[in-house]
Amino acid sequence: MATLFSNATVLPMTSSAEGPHTFTGSVGVAGDRIALVSPDESAAAEFRAAHPGLREIDCRGRLVMPGLVNTHCHAAMTLQRSRADDLPLMRWLHEFIWPFEACQTPDDVALGMELGIVEMLLGGVTSFVDMYYFQHRCVGVVERLGIRAVLGCNYFDSNIDEVLPQIGEAVRLAAGSDRVRIAVAPHSPYTVSPENLVRGRELAERHGLLLMTHVAETRDEVRIVRERYGATPVGHLDRLGVLTPRTIGAHCVHVTDEDIAVLAARGVTVSHNPQSNMKISSGVAPVARMLREGVTVTVATDGPCSNNDLDMWEELRTAAFLQKSATGDPCALPAREALRLATANGARAMGCSEGELGVLREGALADLIVVDLEKPHLQPVNDAVANLVYCGKASDVETVMVGGRIVVENRRIPGVDLPDLYARAAEAVARIRTAK
Amino acid sequence: MATLFSNATVLPMTSSAEGPHTFTGSVGVAGDRIALVSPDESAAAEFRAAHPGLREIDCRGRLVMPGLVNTHCHAAMTLQRSRADDLPLMRWLHEFIWPFEACQTPDDVALGMELGIVEMLLGGVTSFVDMYYFQHRCVGVVERLGIRAVLGCNYFDSNIDEVLPQIGEAVRLAAGSDRVRIAVAPHSPYTVSPENLVRGRELAERHGLLLMTHVAETRDEVRIVRERYGATPVGHLDRLGVLTPRTIGAHCVHVTDEDIAVLAARGVTVSHNPQSNMKISSGVAPVARMLREGVTVTVATDGPCSNNDLDMWEELRTAAFLQKSATGDPCALPAREALRLATANGARAMGCSEGELGVLREGALADLIVVDLEKPHLQPVNDAVANLVYCGKASDVETVMVGGRIVVENRRIPGVDLPDLYARAAEAVARIRTAK
Ligand SMILES: [Zn+2]
Ligand SMILES: [Zn+2]
Repeated sequence: MATLFSNATVLPMTSSAEGPHTFTGSVGVAGDRIALVSPDESAAAEFRAAHPGLREIDCRGRLVMPGLVNTHCHAAMTLQRSRADDLPLMRWLHEFIWPFEACQTPDDVALGMELGIVEMLLGGVTSFVDMYYFQHRCVGVVERLGIRAVLGCNYFDSNIDEVLPQIGEAVRLAAGSDRVRIAVAPHSPYTVSPENLVRGRELAERHGLLLMTHVAETRDEVRIVRERYGATPVGHLDRLGVLTPRTIGAHCVHVTDEDIAVLAARGVTVSHNPQSNMKISSGVAPVARMLREGVTVTVATDGPCSNNDLDMWEELRTAAFLQKSATGDPCALPAREALRLATANGARAMGCSEGELGVLREGALADLIVVDLEKPHLQPVNDAVANLVYCGKASDVETVMVGGRIVVENRRIPGVDLPDLYARAAEAVARIRTAK
Repeated sequence: MATLFSNATVLPMTSSAEGPHTFTGSVGVAGDRIALVSPDESAAAEFRAAHPGLREIDCRGRLVMPGLVNTHCHAAMTLQRSRADDLPLMRWLHEFIWPFEACQTPDDVALGMELGIVEMLLGGVTSFVDMYYFQHRCVGVVERLGIRAVLGCNYFDSNIDEVLPQIGEAVRLAAGSDRVRIAVAPHSPYTVSPENLVRGRELAERHGLLLMTHVAETRDEVRIVRERYGATPVGHLDRLGVLTPRTIGAHCVHVTDEDIAVLAARGVTVSHNPQSNMKISSGVAPVARMLREGVTVTVATDGPCSNNDLDMWEELRTAAFLQKSATGDPCALPAREALRLATANGARAMGCSEGELGVLREGALADLIVVDLEKPHLQPVNDAVANLVYCGKASDVETVMVGGRIVVENRRIPGVDLPDLYARAAEAVARIRTAK
């Protein structure tokens, strides 16, 4: 099955040079891969001839670009969205988040994940990295909705002996999927002991899994890790061998120059969560500095309890604004660079090799989105990329393709009954709140 | 002509106490005023009986709330949206903004204003305060599109003798409108001399006009004003008698404790522009501190060259996030308070008395919006206000009423041909860029 997106403004995100970054032309998809990216009408004609029965989508007034990659979230926490805001961290965790989670069933988590994925797909997110519980129940949800995911099995010292055995089951379930990967996810260096961090690392090595953890999110974390282990969170994790090119470090807000050098040298993927960091008053991650030192920085939403949505457009825009604000330099993290963090760089967090995801080029995975430019807030088109980054909205995404399959069309997800989904979410929340 | 919004989740924004802020019920409008706000079905029935032929809008799954008030923008700069970003301030002004403006005709400005108003209306903005040129050409645009506006006549020392006489004409044109008011708008205390600030103030007093100006936006401004006049920008303006309850001060980023006391004592309305301040690296306004000291703070987008859109949902969310980030206190500027800045407080900037605008109460002007809650990013509804502030989008606004007239319905503005508007904007930009 082949698809041709024709007459589009194409933003391949492959060039790092200055100059025009878009052209008018076509993107052709065959199977799960991009097979054509060209301004040339005769190339489109050849593609049509080579793929009889292809589906052609006229993209006049629309822009085709790589799908967005959300490199850190807790999607199932949609059920707790806006339940408790504007509170001190410890009260929030002890009185709201943890009691709720203690009453959740695996089915509740799968339902929260379903709602989160629906929100992300409608906002042009084609890949996400998650960190939560009950992955064995969530693999099927990801499969059914058609998004691409890395599902991280979150553990603390308190539940490691329950979680680690579940990882094997999740890996077996995901083995049949080309869109789901499982990862090992120790919660953080201050909530997981060195021994248990090493157990996670060894498990990841044994199964060839990615590993993710929260790192240096707050000043308190840095103080605790220094007191206990005499090192920064990054230094501590590095000593334990946890930092590798297959590691995703979420936040990295409070990092020293030496930490940054270590993150760059080990090839760690950093997941920057600007709105979460702002809302919880965590601080401002030195993104511009990390990029300058060669760290692979990506962008993410964090969970719907600390954001409170899964909107990557707001996140990449906030990433740019926050760097400009915090550094005092209006040139910091320009629009093109911000968009790269949310696409090509994000692909690294998914465990993909350079050029395999997050760009439109022949041979790359066909994860792409069609953005409607004919909206008042995107007119006139003086600069398409600046318009997308500084004015683009989740609601401008019209059509979404993952791995060659159209999963959102004209802002609808085939097979998803939204009112029914909302009703099931409301019921689950009511039951859990009564139980606790 | 009367309208009844029934079966709605109603958010009146009249209560400042803790507790539920919404109820299920009806909002009735007669003429240009709200005539009913009630959870009581029998009150709705009475309203129906008293207004035969009324229009009833079923708002099941929808929320009715006051329209948003954008208290500082340069709407016509939509034509320059995303033309020049990520640049140092002086290069941006000298090489891009000013040469473009030198080639704009009054018709171009009216066209840019049209595009800006269309964007704002579709995003639930029912009132805005503008600061730019050629108000005599813009009054008709505001009238036709049905939004409420204060149009500020911007002047520098260099053009005061052209602008001040135009104010009289604009005031005459606006006299016949119940939705347009004219204001005097000296650009800032560092670009307008003390004599010319006083001339503006006197003109405002003579005609009973509002006065607006940029105040303490950047560190450079504070330094320049201190060097020239031996005072802070706020202190300098106060000495000249410019600060009154009819004054709107945009930005107020770099203000001292004494400045804040002056702003509170004089009853000045402060317009906070968080995304602009972040994008241009101006700094962070002490909003939480100003509110604590009794200053009337409101929220605004600033112009589409420094934002780059006119989206008040993003702005009020960013206001909350930025205060939490800058103060290190996750409880700073909570959701309800942030929303109040964009509604009830904003009404003050429009020159309205307490309770006349920005709230749903009987007797208030009928400026209200209907928000569709049945979106994945707004589900479940654990807290409607937190959902709106932390997850709400311009695209969730379905219907907009200003002064009792429906100006947006199902996300369409009757009488506006969007493709034609986009084509005219593109033509104007092409002509201006060739001319300069
Ligand atoms: Zn997290
Ligand atoms: Zn301004």
